[in-house]
Amino acid sequence: MNPRIEPRHFSRPSNSPTWTQVTLVGAGPGDPELLTLKAARALAEAELVLYDNLVSAEVMSLVNPAAEKIFVGKKCGLHALSQEGIIELMIKLVRGGRRVLRLKGGDPYIFGRGGEEAEALAAAGIQFETVPGISAAQAAGAAAGIPLTHRSHAGTLIYATGHLRAAKDTDDADSEALPLDWPMLARPHQTVVIYMGLNSLPLISRQLILHGLPADTPAALVENASLPQQRCIRGSLAELPELARSHALKSPTLLMIGEVTAMHERLSPAMRQANALQQTALNQTAASLMADVLERHCKV
Amino acid sequence: MNPRIEPRHFSRPSNSPTWTQVTLVGAGPGDPELLTLKAARALAEAELVLYDNLVSAEVMSLVNPAAEKIFVGKKCGLHALSQEGIIELMIKLVRGGRRVLRLKGGDPYIFGRGGEEAEALAAAGIQFETVPGISAAQAAGAAAGIPLTHRSHAGTLIYATGHLRAAKDTDDADSEALPLDWPMLARPHQTVVIYMGLNSLPLISRQLILHGLPADTPAALVENASLPQQRCIRGSLAELPELARSHALKSPTLLMIGEVTAMHERLSPAMRQANALQQTALNQTAASLMADVLERHCKV
Repeated sequence: MNPRIEPRHFSRPSNSPTWTQVTLVGAGPGDPELLTLKAARALAEAELVLYDNLVSAEVMSLVNPAAEKIFVGKKCGLHALSQEGIIELMIKLVRGGRRVLRLKGGDPYIFGRGGEEAEALAAAGIQFETVPGISAAQAAGAAAGIPLTHRSHAGTLIYATGHLRAAKDTDDADSEALPLDWPMLARPHQTVVIYMGLNSLPLISRQLILHGLPADTPAALVENASLPQQRCIRGSLAELPELARSHALKSPTLLMIGEVTAMHERLSPAMRQANALQQTALNQTAASLMADVLERHCKV
Repeated sequence: MNPRIEPRHFSRPSNSPTWTQVTLVGAGPGDPELLTLKAARALAEAELVLYDNLVSAEVMSLVNPAAEKIFVGKKCGLHALSQEGIIELMIKLVRGGRRVLRLKGGDPYIFGRGGEEAEALAAAGIQFETVPGISAAQAAGAAAGIPLTHRSHAGTLIYATGHLRAAKDTDDADSEALPLDWPMLARPHQTVVIYMGLNSLPLISRQLILHGLPADTPAALVENASLPQQRCIRGSLAELPELARSHALKSPTLLMIGEVTAMHERLSPAMRQANALQQTALNQTAASLMADVLERHCKV
C-alpha cells in the first residue's frame, strides 16, 4: 500500500483519536521549526485551542484555521484566567463534547503546570495525551553554543524556577523567600538553568555566591531563545544583574550558570552564519522537503 | 508569493546553507514523530550521516535515501569508533569537501557528548549548527504520565548520568567511584532523572538512601521511552534494583526518582487508550496533514 498523498486536501483522519479528549501539547521555545512533527500534526487537527502567552505567533499560525482559539495566558502577573479557571474551563468544554488542544510554551511537564492540568483531567475521568516540546534550555543551548552537559565541566544538569509565588500562594511573599535550594544549586561541576528568574536575578546571584559558588563562575542570560531576536549576554555570576539592566533584557530570559556557558565564546563564531540563515528555515522548499519526508515514511 | 508545493519533487533548496559543514542533530527518543520539523528537514537534505546506536530505525528511515550512512555508535562498551575517532573522521570528511549530518539520540547537548564534538569543530574552524531534540526524560514523562516538575512535589529537575567511565578514563574504575554528587541528588522536593544508570542501579539506590533519601521515595524505571515497546515499572527507591532484575529491563532505561513518579498510577489510566493509538500516528493521513500545515505556513 502506497496511497498517493494529496497535501492540499485537508481532511480528518479516518482513525482520528476522537477518544482523546484533551491533548496537552508543548509548543517549544518559539521557533516553529522546533515543534515536533507530532505537535504540528496536533495543531493541524485541532478543533479548539487553549493557548498561553509564551506560544509564539509563528506557532499559532500552524493551528487549523477553522479551529476556535482561546487565549488563557498569563502576562506580568496578570492572568487572563487563573490556573484553576483554566482547568475548570477545560473540563467544562470537554463535558460539552469538545476536543481540546491545550497548547503550552516549551514542554508541558517542565515548569508548565501541565502536571496539575493532567491530574485534574485524570481525576475528572477525561482521556488525554501529552506531546513533549523542546524546552527553552535546550533551545538556548543549541542556538547560543552552550552544551548543557559536558564530561569535563558538567555531569549534572539542573532546571529550577526563579518564579516568585504570588502573595496568595505563600505566607511570605518577600523576595528573599524565593524557595530555591541554594546549597544544592551552588555546587560545582554542574549546569544550572533558571527559568523565569529575571525579576529575581539580583537575589539569585547574591544567594548563589553566599552559598559558595565563586563570583566569577561563568554565566549567561539568553533572551528569546530560538527566535530571530535572540540575545545571549555572557558574564560572571556576579555581573548578571548589572548585565540584565544594562542590556534591558526582558522576559522570557533564561539564566544559565556554569562552566559550559563560557563555551559560547568559542562555539558561537562557528555558528554565526548558521544562525543568520536559520530564519529562512521553514520556507516553501522546506515544505516540499517535508512532504517528501512524510511520503517516504509512509512506505515504511 | 504563494508558490505551489510539489511534495513529490525532491530538490535541494536554492538557499541551501552549503556553508554549514556539520549539522549536529538530536534524533529524539526514538518515536519518529518526536523529531522536530527542523531535524526532519535536515535528515531529508542529508548527504552523509554519521549516526549512533541510540537512533531508531524509524528515524533512520527519514534520512534522504541517497545519503551515505556511517554507523559510529557505541554498544555495551564496544565502540564502533572512539569519541576521538568520530571527531577525527568528521573533520576529515569536512576537509574532503563533504557536508556531514551528525545524528545523535535525544538532544546532542544532554549527555550526548555533542559539546565535545562542537568544541572540536569550532577549534578546527568548521561551521556547524545544532538542532535540539526531545530528551528521553521528556519522552518518558509524557508517555508514562510523569510530570517532571510540579508545584507541590518538585520545583527542581535534575538530569544526571549513571554511566561509569571506562577504566582508561579514570584512575578508579571501581563501581563505587561513580562520580555522582550524592548529597545533592538525595535532597527532597526535586525530580532526579538518571540516564544510562541501569548497570549502576544497585549502587545508585544504595547511595541515595545512605545520603538521606527515604527508602520509600517513589521511583520509576522507563525502558524504551516513547517506543511502542515502552515499559514503565514503578516502585520505591529501595525496590528499584530488584524490579529491574525481575522485569529483565534492558538499556535504554531511564531511572526517575521523586514524588512525581507516583503520579504515573493516576495519570496512566487516562492515557492508556491514547498510548495504544500513538503507534498509528505517522500514517498517510498525517502526511497529508503535515503537507497542509507547511503549505499554510508558507503564506505567512
